[in-house]
Amino acid sequence: MLLEESIKAIGNLNSDVMQEVQKRLDSLIKPPGSLGMLEELAVKIAGITGSTKPAIKDKAVIVMAGDHGVVSEGVSAAPQEITCQMLPAFLNGTAGIGVLAGHAGARVVVVDVGVAVPVQTPGVLQRKVRAGTGNIAAGPAMTREEAVRALEAGITVAGEEIERGVNLLAIGDMGIGNTTPSSAILAVFGGLTPEEVAGRGTMVNDEVLLRKRGAIASALKINRPDPNDALDVLSKVGGLEIAGLAGVILGAASRRVPVLLDGFITTAAAMVAFKIQPRAKEYMIASHLSGEQGHRLMLEMLGLSPMVQMNMRLGEGTGAVLVMHLVEASLKVLSEMVSFSEAGVADLEEDKLLK
Amino acid sequence: MLLEESIKAIGNLNSDVMQEVQKRLDSLIKPPGSLGMLEELAVKIAGITGSTKPAIKDKAVIVMAGDHGVVSEGVSAAPQEITCQMLPAFLNGTAGIGVLAGHAGARVVVVDVGVAVPVQTPGVLQRKVRAGTGNIAAGPAMTREEAVRALEAGITVAGEEIERGVNLLAIGDMGIGNTTPSSAILAVFGGLTPEEVAGRGTMVNDEVLLRKRGAIASALKINRPDPNDALDVLSKVGGLEIAGLAGVILGAASRRVPVLLDGFITTAAAMVAFKIQPRAKEYMIASHLSGEQGHRLMLEMLGLSPMVQMNMRLGEGTGAVLVMHLVEASLKVLSEMVSFSEAGVADLEEDKLLK
Repeated sequence: MLLEESIKAIGNLNSDVMQEVQKRLDSLIKPPGSLGMLEELAVKIAGITGSTKPAIKDKAVIVMAGDHGVVSEGVSAAPQEITCQMLPAFLNGTAGIGVLAGHAGARVVVVDVGVAVPVQTPGVLQRKVRAGTGNIAAGPAMTREEAVRALEAGITVAGEEIERGVNLLAIGDMGIGNTTPSSAILAVFGGLTPEEVAGRGTMVNDEVLLRKRGAIASALKINRPDPNDALDVLSKVGGLEIAGLAGVILGAASRRVPVLLDGFITTAAAMVAFKIQPRAKEYMIASHLSGEQGHRLMLEMLGLSPMVQMNMRLGEGTGAVLVMHLVEASLKVLSEMVSFSEAGVADLEEDKLLK
Repeated sequence: MLLEESIKAIGNLNSDVMQEVQKRLDSLIKPPGSLGMLEELAVKIAGITGSTKPAIKDKAVIVMAGDHGVVSEGVSAAPQEITCQMLPAFLNGTAGIGVLAGHAGARVVVVDVGVAVPVQTPGVLQRKVRAGTGNIAAGPAMTREEAVRALEAGITVAGEEIERGVNLLAIGDMGIGNTTPSSAILAVFGGLTPEEVAGRGTMVNDEVLLRKRGAIASALKINRPDPNDALDVLSKVGGLEIAGLAGVILGAASRRVPVLLDGFITTAAAMVAFKIQPRAKEYMIASHLSGEQGHRLMLEMLGLSPMVQMNMRLGEGTGAVLVMHLVEASLKVLSEMVSFSEAGVADLEEDKLLK
C-alpha cells in the first residue's frame, strides 16, 4: 500500500524550472557550460525541487544494515559479526561514515533492517524485517512480502527525515557479504555472467573470489529471478539492506528530494528502484566511482556519471557524503554568481564565436 | 637569488612520518586501503608537513593574471579586455572563483603579474613584470630575466600567505589566450605536435582552433625552446601568469606547504616548476581533470591523479578550491577514525585473508 502510493507519487522533473535555470547559468560570467557537471547538478536539483534557487537546508545519510545467509558459502573475508559490531562507530563519529558525515555536516541515521543478531546499540532505528537473508546460493533471500516490508521501511525512514527538514539525502550500506547479492542483481538486470559482475569486494583473495562467483552462478540457477519483475529479483537474490535502500530512494523521489548514491551496494539498490519506477532515476545523483569493478557497469546502465574517482570501496555511504560539498557548490554557483551585464563585463558574444 | 634559494630549499618528503601514518591508516576500522585516494592524500600531506596528524589551519587560492601577445593571432574567442574586467568579481565573490573559494573557506589572493592594461581594482596585488607578453608566434614571450622576476613574484606571494598562517594553497589563472602558451609548453616538454596538445580552450570554433594550432607551430619554430632548459621554455613560449604560478609552487614546496593544481594552465605551470626542480612535484596535489584535452597528458607526465572529473574548464582556480574539502576529509580520516582495537571490533585478520 505505502509502496504503491510512493511509486505513483514519483513525478517528472519540472522542465520549465530547468529551462529557466539553464538560461540563468548561461548568462553568468563564465563561458557557457564551463563549470561542467556543477551546472548540470544545479539544473537537475532545480528540476527535482521545482525551485529556481534551491538551497540545501539539512542533510542526512541513511545507512541500512543487514546480514546475508550467503556468507555460509565463504564469499566474504570478514566474519558476519562485524555487521553489528560496526554500528556504534557509525553513530559516535569514529568510523569512516561517522567522520565523513561529520565533515559534510550530515546527520547519520542507522537502520537495522535485517542484522542477524539483536542490535543493542542506542540510536539505531529498529526496523528489522528478518534476522538476515536466506542463502541465495541455495534458495531465495527472502519472501516477496518481506521484500515489500523492507522497501517500506526505507520509504518510511526517508519520509521521517524529510519531515524533519532534510532536503538532501545520501544512502549507505553495512552488511558483510553484500557485494555477492549486489553482483547477482547486476547479473540479472544486465544479462551478465558472474565473471563480469563480481569483483574482489573487500579483501577477497583468488580462492574467495572463485567461491563468490560460484555462489552467484548457483543463485541465478536455483532462483531463476525474472529480470522484468524487480520485486522477484530483489526477494530472490537481493538483501534486506538493499531493499531498504531502494525504499529510501523511492521515498525521497516521491517527496522530490535528491538522493546521493554511494558505491556498488547502494547502486544495486538504485537499479532495483529504477526497475520498480523508472522515473526514480531522475532523483538520483551519482557520487563516486567505486574501486569495485561492476560499479561502472551499473552507473552506465542507469545513465549516471560519478563526480569523484578516488578508488574508494568502503561503502557505509562514505563516497556519498563526501560529495555533498560539491552539490552545495553547484547551488551556490547558481545563486551567488552574477551575469555579464550585472558585473559590467563585456559579453563573450557567443553568437559570433560559437558554431 | 630568491629563485635559487627556493629551489635549494625544496627537500624530500619525510618518509618516516609517511610510514608511521600508513601504519595508522592500516589499523583503522575499515579494510586496508578502502578509502583509496583519501588515504594516499593523508600520507602525502604527512610527508610534506612532517606531522603525523596534520590539520589545515588556513587556506588561500592565489590567482595570477596576465595577458598574451599571441591573442593578435586570433587564437582566442574572447577579447583581451576581459582579463582585467574579471578581477573585481574574483574579489567580491560573484565570479566562479569567488563563489567556490567562499564555499571552501579559502581567501582569494589576486595578483597582477602581467595584465596588459593598468589594473585599478582595489585589493589586487601589484606585481606586474610587464604589460602582457610578446606574441610567441613571432618571437619570445619575455626575456629570461623577466621570467625570473615573474617566478620570484610567485615565490614572494606564496611566502607572504604562508607567513600569514596559510597551510593549504591552491592556484588559479586568469589570462585571455593562455591555453595557447600552455599548449606550447606541453608540446615542448612532451615532444608533441600542436594537434596533440591544443584543444578548443574556451568557446573556440574550428577556424579559431586552426589558428591556435598554427600559432603554436610558429612559436615552436621561431623560438626553438630547449626542452632541457625550463627557463628557456618559460620565457620563449610561456606566459607571465604561468611563470608566477610556477613560482607559487616552488615557494610553497620550499616551505613544505601542499599546493593544489587547477586545470590546464596551472598544470602547465606545474610542469615548468617540475622541470626547474623535480622534487617540487611531491608538494603538488592534482584536483580535477579538466575538459581541456591536453590536461590528461600533463597529469600523466607528472604522475599525478585527479580526484574529481566534472568536465570543468573555467580556470580561475575553481577546480582547485572545490577539492579543498576532500583534502580536509583525508586528514580527518587520519585524526578522527579509531582502530579495530580502540573500537572493540573483531579485527579483519588480514594475514589470513589477504594474499
